[in-house]
Amino acid sequence: MSEQHVLSGRLTATGHELQQRVYFEDTDFSGRVYHARYLQFMERGRSDYLRLLGIHHRELAADGLSFAVSHMEIDFLKAAGIDDILTIRTTLNETTAARIVLEQVVVRDDERLIAARVTVALLGAKGRAVRLSPNVRAAFATKQATSKR
Amino acid sequence: MSEQHVLSGRLTATGHELQQRVYFEDTDFSGRVYHARYLQFMERGRSDYLRLLGIHHRELAADGLSFAVSHMEIDFLKAAGIDDILTIRTTLNETTAARIVLEQVVVRDDERLIAARVTVALLGAKGRAVRLSPNVRAAFATKQATSKR
Amino acid sequence: MSEQHVLSGRLTATGHELQQRVYFEDTDFSGRVYHARYLQFMERGRSDYLRLLGIHHRELAADGLSFAVSHMEIDFLKAAGIDDILTIRTTLNETTAARIVLEQVVVRDDERLIAARVTVALLGAKGRAVRLSPNVRAAFATKQATSKR
Amino acid sequence: MSEQHVLSGRLTATGHELQQRVYFEDTDFSGRVYHARYLQFMERGRSDYLRLLGIHHRELAADGLSFAVSHMEIDFLKAAGIDDILTIRTTLNETTAARIVLEQVVVRDDERLIAARVTVALLGAKGRAVRLSPNVRAAFATKQATSKR
Repeated sequence: MSEQHVLSGRLTATGHELQQRVYFEDTDFSGRVYHARYLQFMERGRSDYLRLLGIHHRELAADGLSFAVSHMEIDFLKAAGIDDILTIRTTLNETTAARIVLEQVVVRDDERLIAARVTVALLGAKGRAVRLSPNVRAAFATKQATSKR
Repeated sequence: MSEQHVLSGRLTATGHELQQRVYFEDTDFSGRVYHARYLQFMERGRSDYLRLLGIHHRELAADGLSFAVSHMEIDFLKAAGIDDILTIRTTLNETTAARIVLEQVVVRDDERLIAARVTVALLGAKGRAVRLSPNVRAAFATKQATSKR
Repeated sequence: MSEQHVLSGRLTATGHELQQRVYFEDTDFSGRVYHARYLQFMERGRSDYLRLLGIHHRELAADGLSFAVSHMEIDFLKAAGIDDILTIRTTLNETTAARIVLEQVVVRDDERLIAARVTVALLGAKGRAVRLSPNVRAAFATKQATSKR
Repeated sequence: MSEQHVLSGRLTATGHELQQRVYFEDTDFSGRVYHARYLQFMERGRSDYLRLLGIHHRELAADGLSFAVSHMEIDFLKAAGIDDILTIRTTLNETTAARIVLEQVVVRDDERLIAARVTVALLGAKGRAVRLSPNVRAAFATKQATSKR
């Protein structure tokens, strides 16, 4: 497996999987990972999922577009600590004209640490939600078709 | 109003209110505030609310205790940008033997940017939830009694 | 003193002074403040110094300009911890056609925790250093004149 | 190459090399990587270098020890952007009884973006510098001997 491949995680039957290390920066004074950092780990997972589907932040930005989280529900089940290797699993739940709903979990070995449902919208230059562009929908449609096989 | 008083925000009829500035570190490549940073703004609000109720992280830690978020639901309604002054409003919703439920909003002038419901538990040295200590419950009980007047 | 005034710190005889609280997010697993966070505290100080001199990031950005650190030397002398109130003191050292050199210290009560020398350049749209605009130079010139009185 | 191996980078003739992706969280409103984030990338490199030398933060902590940066000089030469893959190269410069001096660069393809010299000390439970423990010195000594061959 090439280094670049590992860096971006990999597509799975139902979505995407990424491994990330917990570093000093992710922990806090309690000795555990700071709660908001899990959102960053999950965002890395979503970015790499999009990347492997052929959707790039930089290209979206050239069109004045960017993805933004519009709603999130998170259960913080167990805490990670320094040096842990976390796996971020992202599953496509639903796509509509203007939003994508994803299920995300963060696990350490067989333990679920975080379970979240994340709604993402595509924002235009003025920060308003716009309809998903055909290439974004096509990328996910292919994925959904594949995962239903 | 003393500088220290402003730094810690102030108790209100229903909870707590804190003003914070958006700096470079809070923004991302989209030109707006990075979504996970709102959790940090809200955590600052909760910390200062506890502080003004007489509950200090450092003292809790000396007893092997720390507060941790166990569940969170967040609506990202509008985005903040660089240089904005945000007000974080925290309202006590409910306290039980082992957890505290808070409503938090982040507003800019009269606009609601973020609305969240946050469940917080007290963790012991081994990372397991423990019953709220009498002094924590007393601090919130006083607050609840006051806000019902 | 108004809340907004406290939020932005204040101009001093030699530069600027800002108070900031240490929150959970700033600490790490060692129990102390994570080393890179001091750079964020110092950046907040520089931003507010510019703000009180009448230079705003948002207006610079409208002209395709932004300030960027080009060089930094930092001594990490002592560590801050959770709940500490830090004072960030920024002193103008030198301005040239294309850069500003600042001395910054982070203190807690009378203890110096951090001492840094920071060189800042103004970058144009393509990320290249450009000459400081007349209004930026004028703002600092006034300041220098004032501090020499 | 195993995924875990890629996650921790690899030992080189003169030190260590780690690849990391730039995500949304690393960028700011200027469209580039926020300056303090490079310190986090470099800290990840140092942590993984120590890890591959057999020195683990968690074990140090069990003995009341942790590494802390005591001095840093950084040149910010060029800026990274969203989606970039960065390579963090760490070279051992010198070890003394109480400190380690490292040279670190962050490169993108063949471009040097960041060049830094970082002095690290080992802190005891009270936050004071202590002598490097024999196993830490032995780990680096082996490395130095190897790199001189």
